[in-house]
Amino acid sequence: MERVRHFQEELEALQSRLLEMGGLAEERVRASVQGLVVRDTAFIDKVLRGDEPINELHIEIDNRCFMLLALHQPMATDLRAIVAAVKINTDLERVGDLAVNIAEAARRYASHPPVKKLIDIPQMGDIAQGMLRDALDSFVRRDTVLAQQVLNQDDILDALKTQVFRELLTYMLHDPTTVEPALDLILVSRHLERIGDHATNIAEDVIFMVSALDVRHQPGQHQ
Amino acid sequence: MERVRHFQEELEALQSRLLEMGGLAEERVRASVQGLVVRDTAFIDKVLRGDEPINELHIEIDNRCFMLLALHQPMATDLRAIVAAVKINTDLERVGDLAVNIAEAARRYASHPPVKKLIDIPQMGDIAQGMLRDALDSFVRRDTVLAQQVLNQDDILDALKTQVFRELLTYMLHDPTTVEPALDLILVSRHLERIGDHATNIAEDVIFMVSALDVRHQPGQHQ
Repeated sequence: MERVRHFQEELEALQSRLLEMGGLAEERVRASVQGLVVRDTAFIDKVLRGDEPINELHIEIDNRCFMLLALHQPMATDLRAIVAAVKINTDLERVGDLAVNIAEAARRYASHPPVKKLIDIPQMGDIAQGMLRDALDSFVRRDTVLAQQVLNQDDILDALKTQVFRELLTYMLHDPTTVEPALDLILVSRHLERIGDHATNIAEDVIFMVSALDVRHQPGQHQ
Repeated sequence: MERVRHFQEELEALQSRLLEMGGLAEERVRASVQGLVVRDTAFIDKVLRGDEPINELHIEIDNRCFMLLALHQPMATDLRAIVAAVKINTDLERVGDLAVNIAEAARRYASHPPVKKLIDIPQMGDIAQGMLRDALDSFVRRDTVLAQQVLNQDDILDALKTQVFRELLTYMLHDPTTVEPALDLILVSRHLERIGDHATNIAEDVIFMVSALDVRHQPGQHQ
């Protein structure tokens, strides 16, 4: 019984560290897009240098998952939750990398005259952050309805990306001086789309994790 | 003893399925780049439709990992190998997605006059495929030297990507009719770079998996 309680505590600690990692990843996405909008190179450089905490947390969470698997040999639901945590951890670390990529593009973008008003790209940033938050909440609450909403949001993000691309292509075709900065905006919109993809991966893991559990509870199933 | 032998057999089956998945992913990268070069839309469409086997294998391998973890509760090295397999499986599935992205760009590229001779991009494709192959070999052989070579190859891929980008930027700045097809080539080079990143992830997982094992064997360590 003592062992069981200890395991549950460790599992909750793992979840709270994952939420912390998600918060960090979200914050870095927000900051990198803000850097693009405000064109403040000192601020952008701070974002570029701030990758360490998320990388450290990535390793810590990975180790926690290993310890839980090795010491407690969890079954069924708990096993699925921990394997999902390994995957979610990887997704969040990649989100951190993408925030760096956005900040790199923002750094270059700041050295050119602005191409256009940045409304749709910050909007993409907001949606991507919201998807990340919802995906992690759906994991903690085992909420497949919320996870499904994350999957639906991804279409909105894709549509915005296509819209941004078309607009920027028009600029590039008519004015060669916009080619370089427009390219960076196209890249940023693709990085944001990929952040949405990572949120989608997390949501899919949650649905898989929870529905596998449901299947086990259906009559006539073995186990 | 029976149980142990059965476990080893299952672990070997898992590895051979992962290798099969790697072979499929590699083949799809090769085919998508070939489609870009030969500009054969029928061939490209075949690549676009051929994503199913890799997605099926992805689910099968994920299930095998779960079964191994749930039924055999492996310790230490075996546990690390299976968790690594979960991650590698995810990386290979994403490589399959990137092959689709390359084929989509190839489809669009075929509708424009060619921008340039495609030498460096197929070269990037070859390097990315080689990295994937080596990364998987390093996993199966627990070979950290080979895994380290994969990490080194990634710099070559990055340098080629930068070179491709600079050349295409020059075209775009001087001739607006090249903007759209050049954009697609830039995207393809980035997709190939990301395939290299996935190979790098796999190699890093192998180094982590094997070196954690070595640490355990050092004198003075607990366990």
